[in-house]
Amino acid sequence: MSKYGEEQDQLKQKLLEMSSLVERAIRLGLDAVIDRNAQAAAEVFRNEAQINRLELEVDELAVNLLTLYQPMAINLRFLVAAMKINTNLERMGDLSVNIAQTANELLTSPALPPVIDIPLMGHLVQTMVRNSIDAFVYSDTNLATAVLEADDSVDSMRTTCYQQLLPVMQSDRQLIRYGVNLLSITRTLERIADHATNVAEDVLFHVNGVDVRHGMGLGRQP
Amino acid sequence: MSKYGEEQDQLKQKLLEMSSLVERAIRLGLDAVIDRNAQAAAEVFRNEAQINRLELEVDELAVNLLTLYQPMAINLRFLVAAMKINTNLERMGDLSVNIAQTANELLTSPALPPVIDIPLMGHLVQTMVRNSIDAFVYSDTNLATAVLEADDSVDSMRTTCYQQLLPVMQSDRQLIRYGVNLLSITRTLERIADHATNVAEDVLFHVNGVDVRHGMGLGRQP
Repeated sequence: MSKYGEEQDQLKQKLLEMSSLVERAIRLGLDAVIDRNAQAAAEVFRNEAQINRLELEVDELAVNLLTLYQPMAINLRFLVAAMKINTNLERMGDLSVNIAQTANELLTSPALPPVIDIPLMGHLVQTMVRNSIDAFVYSDTNLATAVLEADDSVDSMRTTCYQQLLPVMQSDRQLIRYGVNLLSITRTLERIADHATNVAEDVLFHVNGVDVRHGMGLGRQP
Repeated sequence: MSKYGEEQDQLKQKLLEMSSLVERAIRLGLDAVIDRNAQAAAEVFRNEAQINRLELEVDELAVNLLTLYQPMAINLRFLVAAMKINTNLERMGDLSVNIAQTANELLTSPALPPVIDIPLMGHLVQTMVRNSIDAFVYSDTNLATAVLEADDSVDSMRTTCYQQLLPVMQSDRQLIRYGVNLLSITRTLERIADHATNVAEDVLFHVNGVDVRHGMGLGRQP
């Protein structure tokens, strides 16, 4: 493998590592919520420091590759996509921290009935994150397209959660704070899914040179 | 001015235009909420299409500059920052659309008491957006630092809104949906402010070559 290929490979490895940390953070954040596990929440905070460190390393690697090799065409598009994906992954890490913070807030109230759709939603969002980065690393456009499709399911799951929680909150004023916190978590999961969708769109751009963002191609709604 | 300088200037103009559209979208979104103005909400949706178009144009310009001129050092850092800032601006546009959607949701209920801190918070977030992009375009690190400082005020304003709204929701079950929607707006404003903060950090990196992200420098908390 060429020196350029080696360094490009290193960049891919770092993005995979970031993605695995983000998935872990989502899982731990939801464990903290569902199992009322304060240790899991604490782990999300430690996890974020690692994600942040990796963000800096990825940008540095990408800028070095740009400077040293002045790549063209597909290699240039790869680096542009890698830097954008990096920004999205770091933001997903921040959003996972928001989930852990809400989990800590929930721990200050007594245990309350679980909401069934949040673990399901969390699971789907984790899969979207992993698939979006795998799609990039393996230039797999089918996987990227699957991420775009999953985003619609996440949106409708959030609506379902809202419809489940509103009557719960209206039935007992003691449950309002609880409901507000759970709704905030579903909103955050939806935002993480939006970032995974951005990544998938960048992959389609990088691989095909076709811009599917904002409804260009794939027949998606803008 | 050199051909490179001209094209770099064009890129700056496009980012300023995007920023002005994002500020406008925040203002219109809040008008839609506060004045119950459905037309303002509709305008946010039209606005977003323009922001999306500009995002594509900025990326294209940046990739062209990278390909044609293979710039080094400060010019390379400028382009890397421009692409990251572009991603952040587009995301702020999406978030403004979320505010307009919530405004429409609020229009389906009767008029309710206003929450004083939301316009104030919106005003501060608009200023952060403008300042973060001005800081980039004019390489003004003082302005970038002001954005980082304003972010703390936005966070504490959101907490205040939460503390104001919770008792309102607990006092009357008819007000729960209203409260949930307003809290969602404060959360969205906070997220827009986070993106402006990301931009300000990118500016400090671009201008100084010093990375202030994740608590490196400026004595910020990671």
